[in-house]
Amino acid sequence: MTATSSGVIGVFDSGFGGLTVLKALLARLPEARFVFLGDTARLPYGSKSRRTIARYAAESAQFLVNEQGAEFLVIACNTASALALDAIKEAVDVPVLGVIEPGAAAAAANSLTKNVMVIATEATVASHAYAAACRARGLHGVEKACPLLVPLVEEGWIDHPVTEEVVRIYLKELLDEARQNGQNPDTLVLGCTHYPLLRPVFERVLVELTGPSGVRVIDSAEATAAEAARLVLETGGFGLLGDGEAPRIQCFATDSVEKFERLGSRFLGLPVGKVELVDLGG
Amino acid sequence: MTATSSGVIGVFDSGFGGLTVLKALLARLPEARFVFLGDTARLPYGSKSRRTIARYAAESAQFLVNEQGAEFLVIACNTASALALDAIKEAVDVPVLGVIEPGAAAAAANSLTKNVMVIATEATVASHAYAAACRARGLHGVEKACPLLVPLVEEGWIDHPVTEEVVRIYLKELLDEARQNGQNPDTLVLGCTHYPLLRPVFERVLVELTGPSGVRVIDSAEATAAEAARLVLETGGFGLLGDGEAPRIQCFATDSVEKFERLGSRFLGLPVGKVELVDLGG
Repeated sequence: MTATSSGVIGVFDSGFGGLTVLKALLARLPEARFVFLGDTARLPYGSKSRRTIARYAAESAQFLVNEQGAEFLVIACNTASALALDAIKEAVDVPVLGVIEPGAAAAAANSLTKNVMVIATEATVASHAYAAACRARGLHGVEKACPLLVPLVEEGWIDHPVTEEVVRIYLKELLDEARQNGQNPDTLVLGCTHYPLLRPVFERVLVELTGPSGVRVIDSAEATAAEAARLVLETGGFGLLGDGEAPRIQCFATDSVEKFERLGSRFLGLPVGKVELVDLGG
Repeated sequence: MTATSSGVIGVFDSGFGGLTVLKALLARLPEARFVFLGDTARLPYGSKSRRTIARYAAESAQFLVNEQGAEFLVIACNTASALALDAIKEAVDVPVLGVIEPGAAAAAANSLTKNVMVIATEATVASHAYAAACRARGLHGVEKACPLLVPLVEEGWIDHPVTEEVVRIYLKELLDEARQNGQNPDTLVLGCTHYPLLRPVFERVLVELTGPSGVRVIDSAEATAAEAARLVLETGGFGLLGDGEAPRIQCFATDSVEKFERLGSRFLGLPVGKVELVDLGG
């Protein structure tokens, strides 16, 4: 935030799912430059403990800020946002935005019944971060860990009968739980950056289970990008907006850069370019 | 191997799947003592690079030998055996047995057609370690990565229609590939320590696809335990056999000891006891 501003926004995820957030950011901030780090050597965070996730996320944030000059950080990982946002804010000296609060705010703006459902990883659900953020906005919610969905997306079974059946099982259990609690949910929050790739499957199964206007899908990635863009623009760009050049992206990964380059474009919707390997000592 | 022998066998896995190997070892060496390490903070290894897997596995082996006094190491992780056995042997000064060679030897002993199929993680298949070990024994084989099976086992969907359908899809693709190569496989090697929990599913689907005596399932965990017991017993026990006390197990994990304690018994077939948390600096 100084006169020598590097003008870079840092985006962090445990893997490359967070590229769905970067995709939404690119659309909203076409003049900004981005550095993205996927901590692929230590993924998945979703099945690990708070202590371990906090350490990994803080190290990753420090790499983006101290070594890559990021002046604004978007934590594009639900698990890290849910369990390590405070640890990240302590570790670096720039503004930090996670995905939980924007996701919950978007759910609150959408829900008429004030009953929402959240699906996420094991660790995100166990943290109850979404439940707390929803409660703070007057919403009642049910949450469910869906640990099979990330591997299904990474296997490339996006539009596949097995994936549809798994989604059907998970969503039916979640709806049953909500109804047993006397709730009438009208909103489903996608609390994991892999899930937007399955959005058409969720929408198809929700129509089957709740009718054509039963439940609307809210994507935390999209909500977070909107909030990040608002923060950047309302403060005059934080020095983060470029001079009209094409958007520039530099991606880093702690392991498997070939896999990142191969699968990343599926999430980003365009080629990720050359991914640089970085060693965070893990 | 000295007069002050600690009498402990070290068993290592990236997670707790290797407890299926420990289970087989307990049955074969009822008087031995075991230390087990699951590197749960850094799992899964199966999707990571050779460089990273070698570093993690060497650090884990050093913990078992240097800090826990293991005098014989069983690498109960197919991925580490496939990609890091040399790195582990360089890192420690005790005999080391991986799961690949015993698995391939058992396949060779079973196969009449000399055509085998191997299923494993992404990294194990990419290493072609099973293919090389099979070729050295005059076998021809096809291999397939089955990345959805570990998450399905960990979700507890052991006897579940979705799991059966996923197994059917994977095995059908593998059989088709073998037949296109003009092969007639009669043996399926389970090249991942999670897979023995799905053995009834594999057997049911194989009967459906190849008839009642079409393909026999070989479990690398079982083959490795048999080879480890042979090595220990043929050398007079290596000082590793106790004085007739009940078998003793001490389990360590680098993360999520509660999850280890909760799920571990599913793999071990008996309670894993209190799991100690250890920090390998990753």
